[in-house]
Amino acid sequence: MRRPPTIRDVAEHAGVSKSLVSLVLRGSDQVRPEKREAVLRSVRELGYRPNAAARSLSERRSRTVGVLLNDLRNPWFVDLLDGLNSPLHAAGLRMLLADARLNRRTDDDLTGPFLDLGVDGLVVVGTLPDPAALGTVAAGIPVVVAGARDPVPPGVDVVAGDDGRGTRLVTEHLIGLGHRRIAHLAGYGAVGELRRRSFETTMRAHGLAEYAVVEPCDLTEEGGHRAAVRLLARPGRPTAVLAANDIAAVGALSAAEDLGLSVPGDLSVTGYDNTSISRLRHLWLTTVDNAGHEVGRRAARCLLDRMETPGGEGRLHLTVPTLEIRGTTAPAVA
Amino acid sequence: MRRPPTIRDVAEHAGVSKSLVSLVLRGSDQVRPEKREAVLRSVRELGYRPNAAARSLSERRSRTVGVLLNDLRNPWFVDLLDGLNSPLHAAGLRMLLADARLNRRTDDDLTGPFLDLGVDGLVVVGTLPDPAALGTVAAGIPVVVAGARDPVPPGVDVVAGDDGRGTRLVTEHLIGLGHRRIAHLAGYGAVGELRRRSFETTMRAHGLAEYAVVEPCDLTEEGGHRAAVRLLARPGRPTAVLAANDIAAVGALSAAEDLGLSVPGDLSVTGYDNTSISRLRHLWLTTVDNAGHEVGRRAARCLLDRMETPGGEGRLHLTVPTLEIRGTTAPAVA
Repeated sequence: MRRPPTIRDVAEHAGVSKSLVSLVLRGSDQVRPEKREAVLRSVRELGYRPNAAARSLSERRSRTVGVLLNDLRNPWFVDLLDGLNSPLHAAGLRMLLADARLNRRTDDDLTGPFLDLGVDGLVVVGTLPDPAALGTVAAGIPVVVAGARDPVPPGVDVVAGDDGRGTRLVTEHLIGLGHRRIAHLAGYGAVGELRRRSFETTMRAHGLAEYAVVEPCDLTEEGGHRAAVRLLARPGRPTAVLAANDIAAVGALSAAEDLGLSVPGDLSVTGYDNTSISRLRHLWLTTVDNAGHEVGRRAARCLLDRMETPGGEGRLHLTVPTLEIRGTTAPAVA
Repeated sequence: MRRPPTIRDVAEHAGVSKSLVSLVLRGSDQVRPEKREAVLRSVRELGYRPNAAARSLSERRSRTVGVLLNDLRNPWFVDLLDGLNSPLHAAGLRMLLADARLNRRTDDDLTGPFLDLGVDGLVVVGTLPDPAALGTVAAGIPVVVAGARDPVPPGVDVVAGDDGRGTRLVTEHLIGLGHRRIAHLAGYGAVGELRRRSFETTMRAHGLAEYAVVEPCDLTEEGGHRAAVRLLARPGRPTAVLAANDIAAVGALSAAEDLGLSVPGDLSVTGYDNTSISRLRHLWLTTVDNAGHEVGRRAARCLLDRMETPGGEGRLHLTVPTLEIRGTTAPAVA
């Protein structure tokens, strides 16, 4: 292995002083453009890499944002990451990700790897692994929670889709199609609770409280299938199933098929999240788009604001969801 | 913000010297168990976090492995990550991930963030962003490529499923069902090439060279749909479509539906990778399982070997794929 180039090599190559190289690398605006160019050219040509460990000791900036994901196996968050990336990229920050499910076995404190490596901020995507631990983190670096609605420690911003509004949209879509007996495959946690309450409130507001059925579900395809079989095998079965996420709705679709019911002829089915699965031509599921890209973009803005001006109350930002009407909803048959 | 605890606070709290705390934190076996316990208890109670920047300067270990993913939107790699995680976890290492697609816009050199933060090793999952850059990285830390077959710089191990063998399995499955006119929706890159060549070789070995059709495809659902429509609209259409990945096969399924062909009655369709999409009850796609978990496990072993004994030739490890026969393949109709 050849010796890696040092800051001294860069200075010699560019014909400037070491401290000028250092100024350029810190992004100082005190350096004349032609000098800056010369230094950056030498950095590239020599393949110089600033020693981040030393740099972060002196500057306490790694120009990196940690993103803690809940579970890579359920990729509802890909639009959110895209939205997050643009403003962070524009600010010269890059993202490193960790999968909470994988690291759960290694670290008691899931934020540990990020803190050890000195990230400048943390975005928690989805439900919090451990709200208490987050409080400690938020005392040191900016923290934003995106796409979850659980209670957060002080000083943490929350950005999420408006679950109440989104559920009202899809419930009223079904009611507008003439459905009365509507069943909700309900999720869990704070988001599950918000969606279920909005379903019940909307049904009540339309005088349909007595027709509203809530069936708990674990939000997997199997869980959605089982819950839908329970609902559809009963007398007076619902004419529409409103699932708390897309994959449970996909389970409901196959339950309908197993029971010889055609979708949307005999049964309307809706999902939530507008994941890539809902967009498969074979499924073409009516669902709610939670504006994931916008959630990510706003979460990035919150983080950048906190980097510029640390401290201050935690805020809640809700984005406006939209309805994606596809092939699994149709007028109710009498 | 309160002052974070220092190593001195831990020493005082535990009633030991600073250097003993330091020995414990470095994992020294020179410390008596009861002293070690006392120190670790104080670390926990005070919430002490060793300064990783300082630590990595002195020890040059971050106990972290960087994992560079190709594109989070196509989650074929989740089993691979699970397999990777177990041996790394057992060795006290954790994983940080980066999405090459997202960071492509920020960093010219995609491995940059990991190197800057001082990871102990790098696993590249999927096709390499820039083989040349990897050579520089591999001169400094252990590098393993998992799930790709592109040429790699010296000193880099490659672990992947045996694409030749997997494609032969699925081609012979179709031949065994009596299919002769079989079309391959071919991918690109080194893996695409291996799968295509194996399809052609296997067809030839069974005397079916003249019935083999290769249709290029971009490995998306839309691409699979378009390619299948081209194939199925021709006279003498194939009775089986063997796609180079699952999502292209899903596109072929909906093309068949659009053209009024029943699967598997009129047309057999197979995928590759055994992704979660292929396991949806609605699709239930016959596919090849690339032993992703085993690929990950072996990649971790290669990385740990290189950490223990740096240097040495790069090696190639191929895992044995298996056939997953589901609902989209059936005997050919004459």
